[in-house]
Amino acid sequence: MSNVYKLIELVGVSEKSYEEAIQNAIKKASKSLKAISWFQVIEQRGAVKDGNVTEFQVILKVGFKLVD
Amino acid sequence: MSNVYKLIELVGVSEKSYEEAIQNAIKKASKSLKAISWFQVIEQRGAVKDGNVTEFQVILKVGFKLVD
Amino acid sequence: MSNVYKLIELVGVSEKSYEEAIQNAIKKASKSLKAISWFQVIEQRGAVKDGNVTEFQVILKVGFKLVD
Amino acid sequence: MSNVYKLIELVGVSEKSYEEAIQNAIKKASKSLKAISWFQVIEQRGAVKDGNVTEFQVILKVGFKLVD
Amino acid sequence: MSNVYKLIELVGVSEKSYEEAIQNAIKKASKSLKAISWFQVIEQRGAVKDGNVTEFQVILKVGFKLVD
Amino acid sequence: MSNVYKLIELVGVSEKSYEEAIQNAIKKASKSLKAISWFQVIEQRGAVKDGNVTEFQVILKVGFKLVD
Amino acid sequence: MSNVYKLIELVGVSEKSYEEAIQNAIKKASKSLKAISWFQVIEQRGAVKDGNVTEFQVILKVGFKLVD
Amino acid sequence: MSNVYKLIELVGVSEKSYEEAIQNAIKKASKSLKAISWFQVIEQRGAVKDGNVTEFQVILKVGFKLVD
Amino acid sequence: MSNVYKLIELVGVSEKSYEEAIQNAIKKASKSLKAISWFQVIEQRGAVKDGNVTEFQVILKVGFKLVD
Amino acid sequence: MSNVYKLIELVGVSEKSYEEAIQNAIKKASKSLKAISWFQVIEQRGAVKDGNVTEFQVILKVGFKLVD
Amino acid sequence: MSNVYKLIELVGVSEKSYEEAIQNAIKKASKSLKAISWFQVIEQRGAVKDGNVTEFQVILKVGFKLVD
Amino acid sequence: MSNVYKLIELVGVSEKSYEEAIQNAIKKASKSLKAISWFQVIEQRGAVKDGNVTEFQVILKVGFKLVD
Repeated sequence: MSNVYKLIELVGVSEKSYEEAIQNAIKKASKSLKAISWFQVIEQRGAVKDGNVTEFQVILKVGFKLVD
Repeated sequence: MSNVYKLIELVGVSEKSYEEAIQNAIKKASKSLKAISWFQVIEQRGAVKDGNVTEFQVILKVGFKLVD
Repeated sequence: MSNVYKLIELVGVSEKSYEEAIQNAIKKASKSLKAISWFQVIEQRGAVKDGNVTEFQVILKVGFKLVD
Repeated sequence: MSNVYKLIELVGVSEKSYEEAIQNAIKKASKSLKAISWFQVIEQRGAVKDGNVTEFQVILKVGFKLVD
Repeated sequence: MSNVYKLIELVGVSEKSYEEAIQNAIKKASKSLKAISWFQVIEQRGAVKDGNVTEFQVILKVGFKLVD
Repeated sequence: MSNVYKLIELVGVSEKSYEEAIQNAIKKASKSLKAISWFQVIEQRGAVKDGNVTEFQVILKVGFKLVD
Repeated sequence: MSNVYKLIELVGVSEKSYEEAIQNAIKKASKSLKAISWFQVIEQRGAVKDGNVTEFQVILKVGFKLVD
Repeated sequence: MSNVYKLIELVGVSEKSYEEAIQNAIKKASKSLKAISWFQVIEQRGAVKDGNVTEFQVILKVGFKLVD
Repeated sequence: MSNVYKLIELVGVSEKSYEEAIQNAIKKASKSLKAISWFQVIEQRGAVKDGNVTEFQVILKVGFKLVD
Repeated sequence: MSNVYKLIELVGVSEKSYEEAIQNAIKKASKSLKAISWFQVIEQRGAVKDGNVTEFQVILKVGFKLVD
Repeated sequence: MSNVYKLIELVGVSEKSYEEAIQNAIKKASKSLKAISWFQVIEQRGAVKDGNVTEFQVILKVGFKLVD
Repeated sequence: MSNVYKLIELVGVSEKSYEEAIQNAIKKASKSLKAISWFQVIEQRGAVKDGNVTEFQVILKVGFKLVD
């Protein structure tokens, strides 16, 4: 039977970069979902304090194969 | 380790207002998800019968922190 | 034969709320269109005078079945 | 000479409804801007605590005439 | 109490058509979710090999009622 | 004088395919509108029952020349 | 009772400019609709022959008040 | 230190054309902002009276360098 | 060195279905481009004559690897 | 065999109007592409110097038939 | 009285990364606006010279609380 | 005669960052196109294996002047 995939939406956070924020979200989700194989960036935001960026926040769609 | 959040998409319904439709969706989802902390309205629709609005329907993205 | 529906676009206005603006548009359109069964909110705007909102304006798509 | 208008973007907040959140933003902005005459809703969001909506947040574009 | 619905995002695949890709995704998801009642097509993509389409891929939002 | 065209929005339904749903909508609209000459797909949705797609629904913009 | 407005979608054409294409569409629609009071440009297209633009085409939403 | 630019949103109006409406908005804004260097058209609208376009309205984002 | 891909935009046409329109576009493009490996549907349109759909038209983005 | 079309994206520039900017882009592209038959406006921008618009810039998608 | 926030749009530039471009824009804006607390990325662009990226440019919406 | 520019769409890939993915795409395209002067990020995606991001993928529009 043909493959079916599911997409879930996550928000990752990093003090340093969007790439690290993506990796943080993927790593945490991978603890319960073994089959994650791709992602898509939906939105990039961030938090600021006293003129400094304190958080890079990234909203992701993460795709993985549904097992039978 | 940095926080990771998940977004799920819900549809709430009310006979009275979009605010009540939102509250209905959040309340039901909160029974199984304790950490809901924000939402975003994606779409507003409704049902009509004999010239009267019988349902205000709201599609929401609801965000909550993933626990470790 | 299968059903076919038509969508028309309306603007409703209310001094009080978007829900009332929607109901006003649906009620007026229902005088000539008996079969309206759903709507979708496209845009929400408003008018302001002296720092007070005087009109809540809602742009709707309204759907109804085409009769044979 | 022809009229020119400016649009600024505001976020209003209310514990009760989007209509009140809009009115709150318009009222505060009207203290320094006398000529606000229309607005457009850009996004609707909110905050949640213990399964209850604690804030309805609305992002608005607010338009006013530039004086000569 | 009023109904609440959930939307999940799936990717279905078929060698033949988008309609079959949709049906494949719905069928697999229905094994664990009994209440699926509607879907919406979000994106249509595909894979190509040697000038032939080998996969029609469809991204869907699938809606179902949350049981109490 | 130059040509002017009108666009109306229709929803067609089929148990089999989006192509048939489009044809169904065009055929019904053509009974009263003789000059339909093009269409554009706006959205594709569907209904599901017991894990099977029971309706493919397509929202169309349909264009035709206004007669003098 | 509060005002209700309707929006219809038209395509105007001109050999010379988008402004003339808009005026052409408004003029023709005004023969049957007396109350047109505003429009919004949705899309701008055109036709080309032998390296010259032969038609400027504009898709408009045109708004008018529904009479009681 | 690297350059930073600001974008503001304006509405220009003309009886004749969108190009003149843009120029009107830019000219007025330039009285207080000396460094405007580019713009982007966001939306084109207009007003109609008795079947004639009386105003071409253009919503612009206007960009200028922030001085130190 | 890392891979780089190019996307081009094509319009395919079929009297029968969108799937065939996609295949027609891919097949023709494959005569000069050997490495096409994926596509994405951008828009679906069509032509109508005497109440019958005479053309299903699909706008595609087609992706292929740039050779060194 | 059925027709296939290609879309390319161009930026045209004029000191006077968007219509002239479009014509400039089409004319230049027509030197190497004989079969251009339609275009679609994607974005309208411009450059400003000392409060005057010095360039109207238009981003176009231009369509032409692929020859066999 | 409830809080009201304002959003302004900035363009930040860096030779190195989007994160640095964001930080540059936030830092400069913070000289006159003390209360900046969040931002959202709207668009990412860049300049190229001789095959090298010379500028990463980011368009941001920056949010801050309006003081009473 | 006025300048005309062309936009092409590329996908760049990097194991490390979106900035490097952009630079990779620009560098490869610059081998055959000498006049590339700007780019715009259209989409950001990526590949994942065993909970680690293995590819950052960026879809770009790249602009360059057409030579006479």
